[in-house]
Amino acid sequence: MDTDNLSVVLHAKGDLRLVLLQMHSVGICGSDVHYWQNGRIGDFVVKKPMVLGHEAAGRVFKVGPGVTHLKPAPRDMDEFCKSGRYNLSPTIFFCATPPDDGNLSRYYIHNANFCYKLPDNVSYEEGALIEPLSVGIHACRRAGVTLGSSVLVCGAGPIGLVTLLAAKAMGASQVIISDLSADRLAKAKELGADFLLPVKREDTAQEMAKRVEGILGGMPHISIECTGAESCIQTAIYATRSGGVVVLVGLGAEMATVPILNAAVREVDIRGVFRYCNTWPVAIAMLASKRVNVMPLVTHRFPLEQAVQAFETSRQGLGVKVMLKCDKNDQNP
Amino acid sequence: MDTDNLSVVLHAKGDLRLVLLQMHSVGICGSDVHYWQNGRIGDFVVKKPMVLGHEAAGRVFKVGPGVTHLKPAPRDMDEFCKSGRYNLSPTIFFCATPPDDGNLSRYYIHNANFCYKLPDNVSYEEGALIEPLSVGIHACRRAGVTLGSSVLVCGAGPIGLVTLLAAKAMGASQVIISDLSADRLAKAKELGADFLLPVKREDTAQEMAKRVEGILGGMPHISIECTGAESCIQTAIYATRSGGVVVLVGLGAEMATVPILNAAVREVDIRGVFRYCNTWPVAIAMLASKRVNVMPLVTHRFPLEQAVQAFETSRQGLGVKVMLKCDKNDQNP
Amino acid sequence: MDTDNLSVVLHAKGDLRLVLLQMHSVGICGSDVHYWQNGRIGDFVVKKPMVLGHEAAGRVFKVGPGVTHLKPAPRDMDEFCKSGRYNLSPTIFFCATPPDDGNLSRYYIHNANFCYKLPDNVSYEEGALIEPLSVGIHACRRAGVTLGSSVLVCGAGPIGLVTLLAAKAMGASQVIISDLSADRLAKAKELGADFLLPVKREDTAQEMAKRVEGILGGMPHISIECTGAESCIQTAIYATRSGGVVVLVGLGAEMATVPILNAAVREVDIRGVFRYCNTWPVAIAMLASKRVNVMPLVTHRFPLEQAVQAFETSRQGLGVKVMLKCDKNDQNP
Amino acid sequence: MDTDNLSVVLHAKGDLRLVLLQMHSVGICGSDVHYWQNGRIGDFVVKKPMVLGHEAAGRVFKVGPGVTHLKPAPRDMDEFCKSGRYNLSPTIFFCATPPDDGNLSRYYIHNANFCYKLPDNVSYEEGALIEPLSVGIHACRRAGVTLGSSVLVCGAGPIGLVTLLAAKAMGASQVIISDLSADRLAKAKELGADFLLPVKREDTAQEMAKRVEGILGGMPHISIECTGAESCIQTAIYATRSGGVVVLVGLGAEMATVPILNAAVREVDIRGVFRYCNTWPVAIAMLASKRVNVMPLVTHRFPLEQAVQAFETSRQGLGVKVMLKCDKNDQNP
Repeated sequence: MDTDNLSVVLHAKGDLRLVLLQMHSVGICGSDVHYWQNGRIGDFVVKKPMVLGHEAAGRVFKVGPGVTHLKPAPRDMDEFCKSGRYNLSPTIFFCATPPDDGNLSRYYIHNANFCYKLPDNVSYEEGALIEPLSVGIHACRRAGVTLGSSVLVCGAGPIGLVTLLAAKAMGASQVIISDLSADRLAKAKELGADFLLPVKREDTAQEMAKRVEGILGGMPHISIECTGAESCIQTAIYATRSGGVVVLVGLGAEMATVPILNAAVREVDIRGVFRYCNTWPVAIAMLASKRVNVMPLVTHRFPLEQAVQAFETSRQGLGVKVMLKCDKNDQNP
Repeated sequence: MDTDNLSVVLHAKGDLRLVLLQMHSVGICGSDVHYWQNGRIGDFVVKKPMVLGHEAAGRVFKVGPGVTHLKPAPRDMDEFCKSGRYNLSPTIFFCATPPDDGNLSRYYIHNANFCYKLPDNVSYEEGALIEPLSVGIHACRRAGVTLGSSVLVCGAGPIGLVTLLAAKAMGASQVIISDLSADRLAKAKELGADFLLPVKREDTAQEMAKRVEGILGGMPHISIECTGAESCIQTAIYATRSGGVVVLVGLGAEMATVPILNAAVREVDIRGVFRYCNTWPVAIAMLASKRVNVMPLVTHRFPLEQAVQAFETSRQGLGVKVMLKCDKNDQNP
Repeated sequence: MDTDNLSVVLHAKGDLRLVLLQMHSVGICGSDVHYWQNGRIGDFVVKKPMVLGHEAAGRVFKVGPGVTHLKPAPRDMDEFCKSGRYNLSPTIFFCATPPDDGNLSRYYIHNANFCYKLPDNVSYEEGALIEPLSVGIHACRRAGVTLGSSVLVCGAGPIGLVTLLAAKAMGASQVIISDLSADRLAKAKELGADFLLPVKREDTAQEMAKRVEGILGGMPHISIECTGAESCIQTAIYATRSGGVVVLVGLGAEMATVPILNAAVREVDIRGVFRYCNTWPVAIAMLASKRVNVMPLVTHRFPLEQAVQAFETSRQGLGVKVMLKCDKNDQNP
Repeated sequence: MDTDNLSVVLHAKGDLRLVLLQMHSVGICGSDVHYWQNGRIGDFVVKKPMVLGHEAAGRVFKVGPGVTHLKPAPRDMDEFCKSGRYNLSPTIFFCATPPDDGNLSRYYIHNANFCYKLPDNVSYEEGALIEPLSVGIHACRRAGVTLGSSVLVCGAGPIGLVTLLAAKAMGASQVIISDLSADRLAKAKELGADFLLPVKREDTAQEMAKRVEGILGGMPHISIECTGAESCIQTAIYATRSGGVVVLVGLGAEMATVPILNAAVREVDIRGVFRYCNTWPVAIAMLASKRVNVMPLVTHRFPLEQAVQAFETSRQGLGVKVMLKCDKNDQNP
């Protein structure tokens, strides 16, 4: 990219409020690996070469002439945007979702209104981790996690772990987290889980729900499902206290057989999440105040030149979060 | 019952804040018919003779010495009660749910705190209809029906109809209601439905959703499912606009196969209802102000002596609401 | 304006998503009269000639090349916009608030994303009245008006009247409206007020509150203050039921002496409004469904050529809403 | 008291669900001192000898025959109780508010439904501190404190300090607390305040608001006023970000002169608190999980025999919380 000629590029894009960023750190998400390996996620099909990456932080390199602060990512100001739920807008731009390129690159141009300045005491990697942390924050907001909440998190992968971090930061008094893997549960312990719940494939949903109730001394107010497995959705419904909430974050099959009557007659609400909205200011405030420590999530780092190796590491499920370092002159966290 | 000796009875019940009512009108609910025919609904099993009836209105005959206004129906002031969701309390008293007797009788003793005075311009039958109307109000509240809402109601039976009435009263601009029966749809039209949606057994959920969108000129904000049929739950999910709400009122099988992922990624919330709470003051206000007309719901009336015939009429699905007249000297509406 | 050369104009404005409208009907608001007479409202000072008008409807005459549907009025996508409260954005564009010109003109260019198509059964004047009606809708939303609400509206001027209309449409069972003028109260009666409350200058706030309670048979859940008078703010606080809401719509002096302790210890919330947000789709749905009739608000009509006479009529407080007809060839409502 | 004969006492009180408690620790509240010194607080007048104390914990000594768990404190199940806001019920029982006796005594009988079992890892003094902590929790709930909130707390007395604790526990990223006294601010620092704001009597409200904005790098989302001083209410309004919330906890004069227009046009909501509701389960969960440390609040302890000296200490404003030890055989925290 001819970085000297930003305004030509910006004019070509028809918007003077864009920003050219020099990328520093980009995390690899499961969706990146999925696009790499499968070429599609549901209705989103990669039809031409597409840059990956959306968990990212970098330096402002140049700004368009129309930028006063640092432009809306939604391409169209529809009713979803106007009412504050821009994540549901069908026209929203989202990095590395076809047909939109991602930001895993040396330089990247983004809408200034959706760029946030990191405080001096927040690192680039923390900045890149705001994206996955946002999923946890949005899930906990949708769940209504608040002071004294007891929460079951199903699954201790990256999304389960950021959900755990967000739940604790929002005042949950008890978080119990389940997984098949002892390693993942150990990481959850390190990140502040109050209780661990090892799962075996043969456990039934109702057995699991009973076990959760026994450990917590009562049914949890909230269950946040981060695996997409049908049996875990069932567990989440059976486990949740009457009047509580089940949030579905994990993506599984289009159709699922679930005890929906059990949820309905106990007024256990079932809510999904699609990405997130309005999370960056909150996440930055939490990172700056040191109330949330996301750094243990980063288990691997690779220079951008070794991207294939980095993706391979992520694909094999080694560690939690693999970070790609995009700035040749600064490979620090 | 020795009506002269209320205080002896009340002392025996250990609560001085009870009220002896002379029943006037009691409507027959599907659950009454179900207990009569099947002896159980789910976990609620009739183990000894039980009086039926819970859609009721009557006159205050005598009051306990501890009654200042007219006692909490919840037997125990648990956290559900304290936080305003007393319908979810496991200890709540509910007429004609085993083991609790109903109020289909000449006289009936109830907790004074859960008795409401009807204004002079509200009839006993309107009073009795507050119970089913409460289901509609609670469903619409849970759905968040408000000014300008577009609403799909699945099913035009008694519950679908009261939901329609409540939705219109809460400001919905468009209510479309579906049913297999043309007669039921005609009644819905009479009660104010904006659009009717005849359904055939072979229609698929996705076809139905498309049809709803076509008729309304857009997907509805809210779908309220009042049939319990799996296919209708599916229709409700597919039909609802992203960011909207599906409320499940109809009771079907414990397990259902539903497009829960479709709901989750579009942030369409799924919420059930269990009876209702805090609806009587609102319903009385609406009836007194003549903003809601529930009287067309009453299609049949029988004196209490003909209760079996009344139940038979209800069982056969003739008409909408069958009303039993309990006061020999006043059989007026 | 050279209407043949829209794209030159749009390029000059730097935004290709603008729309050129041929104005049809523009209502006169008190703020228009105020700017005309006083040259300022608070911090908003008219420093150079400014076109008036913001209650408006017209025809799409030409659209910019970037318009797919019909661009955000907020100039900057700040956190208020992202979270759905764009009315609070300090950079928002608002017609006829200095330094922004209004739309009282033959032709007017507006952001396409904030233009709404009127259905065939909604007239241009109804379209123009969506703006003041929006104030009523926003006030009632902020108040939480819902099914069965009892509402005190202080003041039966244009804003009090649209608040009355909105409250009834949202399901309020009782609306009582106060004013010094019998004529205004008569108009409120015509528009659906349940109770009228004539006020005299010597009435104290606590007397008024008692009178409201007496008429309604209980304190109202909600009071919406549309006069800005200190005594009315006091009345609204004293009158409102514990746990209820007072909404302040009328604008008075910067400082007011109010019984704030009385409000605080009874948990009566005090909430203001600044214009409105997200009201057009709802208002259009209500007008299209004929659930709200705003036409009785229009008491005077003038062709644009007689604008000074129209403003004079409005300034003298004659009638309710004065409408200016901007289309020479179509002076219909 | 004849503690051997509880059932006689209970029968005399007409309720079999009462509990006789052996009191362990009772904190002295400002209201206790006020009743002692002045004999009244507003409309609540001490007309006959009244036991003081409401911040209390003790042991269950005997239970009434109707107690299964451990009776509602509200005497009447009115609409406030039914809808979850029982603190607003005019018939609620509240310790040491005339005419109701408090629990500063060796033994005390209370409604079992409003007694909560303390977990083994929560001390009696922590139990007694749940009462003042509840005020902080309720204030923060009313304010909507959540993840990333920035909060101004006006006043670092006992209520300001518990508000600080609750705000941090609910995820606030920045809490700034103001006071005239350096000692109080030092205690606030010890309890986790992020920023201290020393105040002088001559500071104007607008100057204070500017100072808050400068320290936080932006206006706070929320201000919680815990002094009752008119100037502090003004500061809270001016300081709060548009769209934010001011909560009034401190009690001052009936009438106050405040910039209510400034609040209204910026949609800064003003909300009061009356005691609290539904806080004990949450507070117990937080204490049990060790996420909140209330013990630094206790600065003085006296045996019950030295109650006058304890009250004198509290009256002089020495320390924060004075605790009376009611159990002769166990004077531990």
